[in-house]
Amino acid sequence: MGTHTGREIHLAARPDGWPTVDDFRLVEVAVPEPGPEQVLIRNRYLSVDPYMRGRMDDVKSYLPPFKLDAVLDGGAVGEVVAAGDGVTALSPGDLVLHNFGWREFAVAPVRHVRRVDPPAGVGPSAYLGALGMPGLTAYVGLLDIAGMRPGDRVFVSAAAGAVGSLAGQIAKLRGASRVVGSAGSAAKVARLAELGFDAGFDYHDGPVRDSLKAAAPDGIDVYFDNVGGDHLAAAIDRMRLHGRAALCGMISVYNAGVPVPGPANLPLMIGKRLTLRGFLVLDHDDRRPEFDAEMAGWLADGKIRFDETVVDGIANAPEAFIGMLGGQNTGKMVIHLTG
Amino acid sequence: MGTHTGREIHLAARPDGWPTVDDFRLVEVAVPEPGPEQVLIRNRYLSVDPYMRGRMDDVKSYLPPFKLDAVLDGGAVGEVVAAGDGVTALSPGDLVLHNFGWREFAVAPVRHVRRVDPPAGVGPSAYLGALGMPGLTAYVGLLDIAGMRPGDRVFVSAAAGAVGSLAGQIAKLRGASRVVGSAGSAAKVARLAELGFDAGFDYHDGPVRDSLKAAAPDGIDVYFDNVGGDHLAAAIDRMRLHGRAALCGMISVYNAGVPVPGPANLPLMIGKRLTLRGFLVLDHDDRRPEFDAEMAGWLADGKIRFDETVVDGIANAPEAFIGMLGGQNTGKMVIHLTG
Repeated sequence: MGTHTGREIHLAARPDGWPTVDDFRLVEVAVPEPGPEQVLIRNRYLSVDPYMRGRMDDVKSYLPPFKLDAVLDGGAVGEVVAAGDGVTALSPGDLVLHNFGWREFAVAPVRHVRRVDPPAGVGPSAYLGALGMPGLTAYVGLLDIAGMRPGDRVFVSAAAGAVGSLAGQIAKLRGASRVVGSAGSAAKVARLAELGFDAGFDYHDGPVRDSLKAAAPDGIDVYFDNVGGDHLAAAIDRMRLHGRAALCGMISVYNAGVPVPGPANLPLMIGKRLTLRGFLVLDHDDRRPEFDAEMAGWLADGKIRFDETVVDGIANAPEAFIGMLGGQNTGKMVIHLTG
Repeated sequence: MGTHTGREIHLAARPDGWPTVDDFRLVEVAVPEPGPEQVLIRNRYLSVDPYMRGRMDDVKSYLPPFKLDAVLDGGAVGEVVAAGDGVTALSPGDLVLHNFGWREFAVAPVRHVRRVDPPAGVGPSAYLGALGMPGLTAYVGLLDIAGMRPGDRVFVSAAAGAVGSLAGQIAKLRGASRVVGSAGSAAKVARLAELGFDAGFDYHDGPVRDSLKAAAPDGIDVYFDNVGGDHLAAAIDRMRLHGRAALCGMISVYNAGVPVPGPANLPLMIGKRLTLRGFLVLDHDDRRPEFDAEMAGWLADGKIRFDETVVDGIANAPEAFIGMLGGQNTGKMVIHLTG
């Protein structure tokens, strides 16, 4: 072990509305040796997630804001290259999942690092996707928060995204009678059909309300919301009695810069006895064992397919992130680090 | 029994926005004798309820629209004056609760009539209020839909109204740590203090958001919504983690005539893990036995006080209804019929 230098992405400025590449800075730093109970990790995949946009604002939220001129820590998978004194649970060569991302090398306390062991045919980046936070988010949101039951009619927005594509497929596997998805391009809508969605539409093709009505003529029981705005209003319109929505994200308003009025049709919630429920996956770690087992089985059996949009090189992470906010990804977006 | 004539209120026109007295018509009709399994009832109290506004529009909803040029049936309490063939469960002189209101005399099938027997000190009109639909609505909405637990901080809108005043008092009796109410006049706010609310404000005195912040500086866990609009947005703003709102009514938008944009702060629902849930009391008849027993006990012990705004004479029902929509009532509004 010599001394390493590594590159990392800093937050250079807080975005005003849509982020630009100037809000980020690539910095080269010296990487310290791991101290007691720490490991040095060479990251292989960095996670690019919508929730990071929220942490770029200086507002109180469920996670602290990113600091200016400091690394944008996010999810990552890497390989242990050195272990400090007292480390017994991990050895060099081990693959680990952690939240010290958006840098090439990370020094992390062992207790904040989870060793992972991909099943046959599953790559390490799956722990940032189908087997990771997006997978558990889809699983908990659909089954626990929205309480999807066999026979339900389900609508998923941003359905070609990491969470949405899993939510739709899980719905089918768990017995939904019909699953409809919205996405942002004709190519993505075509992909939804391949993933087993019963219908899909490009939300650019007209008012979401009209498109959803055509795709779900008998209404919906469950809405998995990644988008908010017009999508949420349309879902409330189409909901049947006792409909439930899991509010997972509202990517349509994250970069608006000004408050966006909510749905004008909330009064329908009374007569139709609707429930809207927001959730964060970090409350639901108790569901991980069941999720891990079920999802690993689905992946092994080829019953769930998981798309990735892979961008090479840490220097491209800011542009990739901005692209994801604009919907340029299909499935999970990750940064692949080589060398 | 001779032949009766009786007066009733018809819907003369569907209101466009706020109803006017011209939308109603007082009609004198011949009252038929009760047929088999029917009773003839002389009504004593007619119920004046906000939900009736919705039935005046010709839209599909949980209850069918009122028909034009036909009686506005609503809740009523009256006295049986004659029974048809085969009626064994009821006798002349019995006090009954039913939904054949807004007329002086009603002929009703026995199976749609419920005999009531007011405890000492409780008048017949209580079955249109504390012991009736508004009482059960407050009870179910607060305890089942919003899931209020001891120690919760509770906010109730339209808190001087029939449902709101009961919701606030039930919250205190069931262990809420703080109960805040909004109302539409200084006199009503003063009444909230007498009913045991910890704080109250007149929503005319400034932005609801500011008033609620001052009245609930530590936030709220539960919101009982009778109003919608700005009140709902303010509640979402002030909600603590895992806050729950029972959506009971949205009187602020019923007469708007045009769609009113919803709260712009719905994205807060995700980070704070909030739940908004609409409900109708008609789904919750299974709760009636427990409610009846508990409410009767509270009334007998003087632990719940229930205000009534009593208007005399069926001819004044339309004006009373319009006044109630504008907040002229304190507590439950009823029409008292004499003669």
